[in-house]
Amino acid sequence: MATKKGLLQRLDEGVVIGDGGFVFALEKRGYVKAGPWTPEATIEHPEAVRQLHREFLRAGADVMQAFTFYASDDKLANRGNESSKKYTCRGINDAACRLAREVAEEGDGLVAGGLSQTPTYLSGLGKEKTQREFQKQVDVFVENKVDFLIAEYFEHVEEMEWAIEVCLKSGMPVVASMCIGPEGDLHGISAGECGVRMAKAGAHVVGINCHFDPFVTVQGLRLMKAALDREGLKVHLIAQPLAFHTPDAGKQGFIDLPEFPFGLEPRICTRWDMHKYARECYDLGVRYIGGCCGFEPYHIRAVAEELAKERGKFPKGCEKHEPWAGGLKMHTKPWVRARAGREYWENLRPSSGRPYSAAMSKPDNWGVTAGDDILKQKTASTTEDEIKLLKTKKTKA
Amino acid sequence: MATKKGLLQRLDEGVVIGDGGFVFALEKRGYVKAGPWTPEATIEHPEAVRQLHREFLRAGADVMQAFTFYASDDKLANRGNESSKKYTCRGINDAACRLAREVAEEGDGLVAGGLSQTPTYLSGLGKEKTQREFQKQVDVFVENKVDFLIAEYFEHVEEMEWAIEVCLKSGMPVVASMCIGPEGDLHGISAGECGVRMAKAGAHVVGINCHFDPFVTVQGLRLMKAALDREGLKVHLIAQPLAFHTPDAGKQGFIDLPEFPFGLEPRICTRWDMHKYARECYDLGVRYIGGCCGFEPYHIRAVAEELAKERGKFPKGCEKHEPWAGGLKMHTKPWVRARAGREYWENLRPSSGRPYSAAMSKPDNWGVTAGDDILKQKTASTTEDEIKLLKTKKTKA
Amino acid sequence: MATKKGLLQRLDEGVVIGDGGFVFALEKRGYVKAGPWTPEATIEHPEAVRQLHREFLRAGADVMQAFTFYASDDKLANRGNESSKKYTCRGINDAACRLAREVAEEGDGLVAGGLSQTPTYLSGLGKEKTQREFQKQVDVFVENKVDFLIAEYFEHVEEMEWAIEVCLKSGMPVVASMCIGPEGDLHGISAGECGVRMAKAGAHVVGINCHFDPFVTVQGLRLMKAALDREGLKVHLIAQPLAFHTPDAGKQGFIDLPEFPFGLEPRICTRWDMHKYARECYDLGVRYIGGCCGFEPYHIRAVAEELAKERGKFPKGCEKHEPWAGGLKMHTKPWVRARAGREYWENLRPSSGRPYSAAMSKPDNWGVTAGDDILKQKTASTTEDEIKLLKTKKTKA
Amino acid sequence: MATKKGLLQRLDEGVVIGDGGFVFALEKRGYVKAGPWTPEATIEHPEAVRQLHREFLRAGADVMQAFTFYASDDKLANRGNESSKKYTCRGINDAACRLAREVAEEGDGLVAGGLSQTPTYLSGLGKEKTQREFQKQVDVFVENKVDFLIAEYFEHVEEMEWAIEVCLKSGMPVVASMCIGPEGDLHGISAGECGVRMAKAGAHVVGINCHFDPFVTVQGLRLMKAALDREGLKVHLIAQPLAFHTPDAGKQGFIDLPEFPFGLEPRICTRWDMHKYARECYDLGVRYIGGCCGFEPYHIRAVAEELAKERGKFPKGCEKHEPWAGGLKMHTKPWVRARAGREYWENLRPSSGRPYSAAMSKPDNWGVTAGDDILKQKTASTTEDEIKLLKTKKTKA
Repeated sequence: MATKKGLLQRLDEGVVIGDGGFVFALEKRGYVKAGPWTPEATIEHPEAVRQLHREFLRAGADVMQAFTFYASDDKLANRGNESSKKYTCRGINDAACRLAREVAEEGDGLVAGGLSQTPTYLSGLGKEKTQREFQKQVDVFVENKVDFLIAEYFEHVEEMEWAIEVCLKSGMPVVASMCIGPEGDLHGISAGECGVRMAKAGAHVVGINCHFDPFVTVQGLRLMKAALDREGLKVHLIAQPLAFHTPDAGKQGFIDLPEFPFGLEPRICTRWDMHKYARECYDLGVRYIGGCCGFEPYHIRAVAEELAKERGKFPKGCEKHEPWAGGLKMHTKPWVRARAGREYWENLRPSSGRPYSAAMSKPDNWGVTAGDDILKQKTASTTEDEIKLLKTKKTKA
Repeated sequence: MATKKGLLQRLDEGVVIGDGGFVFALEKRGYVKAGPWTPEATIEHPEAVRQLHREFLRAGADVMQAFTFYASDDKLANRGNESSKKYTCRGINDAACRLAREVAEEGDGLVAGGLSQTPTYLSGLGKEKTQREFQKQVDVFVENKVDFLIAEYFEHVEEMEWAIEVCLKSGMPVVASMCIGPEGDLHGISAGECGVRMAKAGAHVVGINCHFDPFVTVQGLRLMKAALDREGLKVHLIAQPLAFHTPDAGKQGFIDLPEFPFGLEPRICTRWDMHKYARECYDLGVRYIGGCCGFEPYHIRAVAEELAKERGKFPKGCEKHEPWAGGLKMHTKPWVRARAGREYWENLRPSSGRPYSAAMSKPDNWGVTAGDDILKQKTASTTEDEIKLLKTKKTKA
Repeated sequence: MATKKGLLQRLDEGVVIGDGGFVFALEKRGYVKAGPWTPEATIEHPEAVRQLHREFLRAGADVMQAFTFYASDDKLANRGNESSKKYTCRGINDAACRLAREVAEEGDGLVAGGLSQTPTYLSGLGKEKTQREFQKQVDVFVENKVDFLIAEYFEHVEEMEWAIEVCLKSGMPVVASMCIGPEGDLHGISAGECGVRMAKAGAHVVGINCHFDPFVTVQGLRLMKAALDREGLKVHLIAQPLAFHTPDAGKQGFIDLPEFPFGLEPRICTRWDMHKYARECYDLGVRYIGGCCGFEPYHIRAVAEELAKERGKFPKGCEKHEPWAGGLKMHTKPWVRARAGREYWENLRPSSGRPYSAAMSKPDNWGVTAGDDILKQKTASTTEDEIKLLKTKKTKA
Repeated sequence: MATKKGLLQRLDEGVVIGDGGFVFALEKRGYVKAGPWTPEATIEHPEAVRQLHREFLRAGADVMQAFTFYASDDKLANRGNESSKKYTCRGINDAACRLAREVAEEGDGLVAGGLSQTPTYLSGLGKEKTQREFQKQVDVFVENKVDFLIAEYFEHVEEMEWAIEVCLKSGMPVVASMCIGPEGDLHGISAGECGVRMAKAGAHVVGINCHFDPFVTVQGLRLMKAALDREGLKVHLIAQPLAFHTPDAGKQGFIDLPEFPFGLEPRICTRWDMHKYARECYDLGVRYIGGCCGFEPYHIRAVAEELAKERGKFPKGCEKHEPWAGGLKMHTKPWVRARAGREYWENLRPSSGRPYSAAMSKPDNWGVTAGDDILKQKTASTTEDEIKLLKTKKTKA
């Protein structure tokens, strides 16, 4: 492993391709529960986690992000979740690192340990308690000698700064990525200012993941880059957006859309959307390009294909996928063979097949954020009465 | 294995849940090439095939359909495909049977060997040559002692009758499923008549798979059932539709839609669509209920959940999925917790997030079918000039 | 007037173009009340009625249909309507005839007196009472020497037969047109059978008006024509459809759509839709081609332009409208001048500008019809309590 | 007339309701040619112009805007238009004033004389020549003693300033209204700055008309008001938007949309949209509230109904229209009676009935503006070759 190039060197030299989000992909495969979204599958079903890593590697991903999303101890014990008790925070994070390393070594992959925002912060319990949660995960990442750390999926730049502070003590490169859009964080801090604050806090790479579609995310990054340039801050940029179209989302992103999380299918991006996304990122100067919720291996493959020339290589998995639909030349039906080519797919505006659906939705917009009572951590499950109360609120909103 | 109940007994006693289609799922995962759609992954990447079988088993599937789609020798050598030479028809089919058996034994699953329509037939080479292709696959299925045979994805009932004839000689139960809609087969034979001819040919289970969405497929089955009832024929029914909405498809189904195969994302069914599908099938009397292209494990899980009461059991994978979005009670955001419940999801008409897309497409409609020159088998790859010619035809059409 | 060719001669020789519906057009102009939809404007605001007649004449209409829709005495006194008392049935019908005649003489127009279905029939009061209502109108038409009679907007062929019987006694040509779609009348009588019964009752021209869009109406006429041909009945056909797209309407037509009558704007047909409609009618053999609700003068003009060659003339109003957007050659902006031409407009699929709207609606479907208590005539206005009760029913439905 | 309150007093005391656009309405009725869009109908068909004025008056309009749009002499002679020669600028403007006055006196209406942008300016011929065109119209307005002047439909604030200068010399109140959206004028001057410049030039009322839908227009006015407030400028605001939804339009507004001008039907606003528009205007402080292209009398009536309480009166035409669909209580079908009420219509998102159409369009965006050769005035008609050339450009764009 000594000869492997590190993240920052790779970013200086060219493009690093990230992987896709694990919670949505594994929820559909049957190994993650929507709601808590925690990664106990690293212990319960390592073969499923390993296989997904492998698919992303074959698709062209340079990074195997250990499946440690929402694996802070407080989250593993939130609202009836028993993973903390059954497997411990340490156990889940440790298993995640080992699986990521195993697959990374099948190629030339880097392993990243990941932190996400915590119930502790959302409950308003302060810096010390929040950082203690982060530290527990970082300790495991250090023991496992991951290649770098990634603090991602933060809605408040304040909590992110606290996370960066903890990460930096490990001596590893630190990537910082917030789940925000062009409107900025949930405390009203602009996207540009978020970027600046992450960079000033010491992150080596800053950017945006989750919550918005690739194109809205690029808009957010454009604002971030402009602010960084104004301040003369030199850091790399990362994009890891949703693979769902969200032109209609508000500040809170896809969480607010009525379709979240079980009716998002019509919004899933095509591989051609991902070609466009990869190109827009590259042109903006983003060098760490990956995905989050909704990304399946073929979406990452499309990113790798779009940037094959810049990277000087096609991904392994391309043995089964010719760029721009070339494989259709082997299709039985002649009119499908006629679809083999870039122009056809670049110009297609795919129909929804849903004449009773609209194009856009009005997001819920409850306007609650960190510190609000209704957001506080709770060990017990939500009761039926509490749900009933929430539904009333929904109807009024 | 001796104590395992067979297919027909299970169908007599209740519902048998099928699995989902492998070619689309594995194409997205990076192991199948769109265009040829052949299953050499059984040899090249057994771990990926095994994992997909396992996910369907966990989701509630009772059948592990060996991944032998389009694995006839003529197809493996069509239009530049080298799988026949490299792996042989026997090799691929044999590996497929062993993988399916391995996973089936992790639960109470049945193994099915599958045949599909052949280039030989489409090229007009006649009954004897076509049946020879089928026989090569059936020989491997017999050696592997699969539990039953399934002849599926036939566009012409004539070829299906030839397949059934070959299958019956094995002595195993035979399922016969055509990729047709309410308009019937490509030779103009009505859906009802197709059902009758399959039953008269001796199939134990008849029905429809692929090419149309769940609801169009149920319409087709309704016609088939009415015709069978009129003739007094007693056979079981099977439904294995697409997981793509196709209200706008013509006789040729989704193949004709401009979005096939790389722009179908907006048409992907939600899990709630599958609840509705399972219920409609059950109410019609269909007892073999599974899926085809586009079905992911969570779609099969939704079928199993909808019919849990009738079957007296939930699938294993439900440890990670509470019916009707129950898991959302554990979500961090209160307005998402308010979405935990049946009424919310049953009434949602999910938006597409695509304001520049229409709801429906005009299908290509070239009107070519078996015997037409342009459909004939060819060992060589399609040339650029041939593609150019096809595109001209497309523009005119 | 003696030299004017009559309706039947004109139909034998070529195409007769009808006018558009008055109640929707005059509701928007401020002279008709939606709900009762009665034509007291003939007395209250003759200048507005005259102007609309004139616009249709200029647009190419050969028929000035006297504005006598829903002008039967029972309807003028229904649910709080005071028109019967204030103006009398005779007064309104008489004024209507004189206005139509006045404008008809500005060109070569024919005047038609029109009957529509009655509350008396819907209340189940029987043939004699129903025919008495018709007779009162026909008497006025005879006195005014209109050129022919048109019984239109009937939902039940039985009532239509009674109307035809009354009309025939006048000795004038009788046109009979039902507001039905391909599913037939509200008593379940097929479209074909309706056509046959109208012809057998003695109508000289039979067909369909209102309730469905031009293309659904042509489908209905196709069924009607086939049935007439099978019976060897020789009558002319009339089409006077809506100018609203209704691909999603059920048996009851646009009345059932949630958008009726105040949210239909997105469904309004373009002039290019009317070119297509006129051509489809002509090709089917329909020779009386006009419009109903939603048709504005420019829609009729499009019909006249499409058939200008067959008719050997362009309408007067074409001095202000060059066929196929020719006038755009005079537009200031060059990219709009580039839209001057047939190909551009024929291929345009106009966007809705409504990203929060779906393409189709689920119609109300209360399934009530003639004789049902809730449909019975009532002189008094509907009370607030009755409306409240109806809304409850709506929510449940 | 001496006792009639003037525009500015009315605005100080409350809301003034404008009328709707004449060119689109009369094009559909057959009296205006799309392309040149000039108002020679004032001479050719005074009865049609008078009737439209009357309908707006009945609907609640306080202003009869003389039909003088594009009636500058240079425009009447542009690209093959023969109106200048046949009727003269003076003749058309004079007839327009007399028709407006005649109808205004049927109620309590004010008469406005209107100027619009000129080909002279777009051809880059400078201030003096441009103002000469304006002066010719203003002279006629002064002779006819109109109540105020309105300079509207200007794409460049520079030309607007020249128009205001000419108008002010008349001593009459001057309304200045540009056809811009939130992005500002075609020379890149912001909406706010345009408002400020119009006010500083001396206009008594400033605002926006045409090119964008009611809601986009209100956004533009919001920017204008903020800028005026910042500068401490006290003027009244006017809104006269399209009655077409244009969420997808760019800087050039609906002219750029592929549907302009003959495929805009699906975008037509409902009366309920106009209630919302009127309320938003009122709440923003806009006091001159009217409409432009697409507005039919019933749209103005909806504005008048929404503000009936604030104005202390309902329009005359409301004898035929009860607010919030009250007339439906008299409908025959009970499920339509159930739609009588505000909640139903306020919440309806009307379907398009067009499953093959998208929600939004990509506008043409040629980026040509004042001074560009291709925009220059030309007396001769556009030739077929020129159109062919334009189409090529379109395809490339």
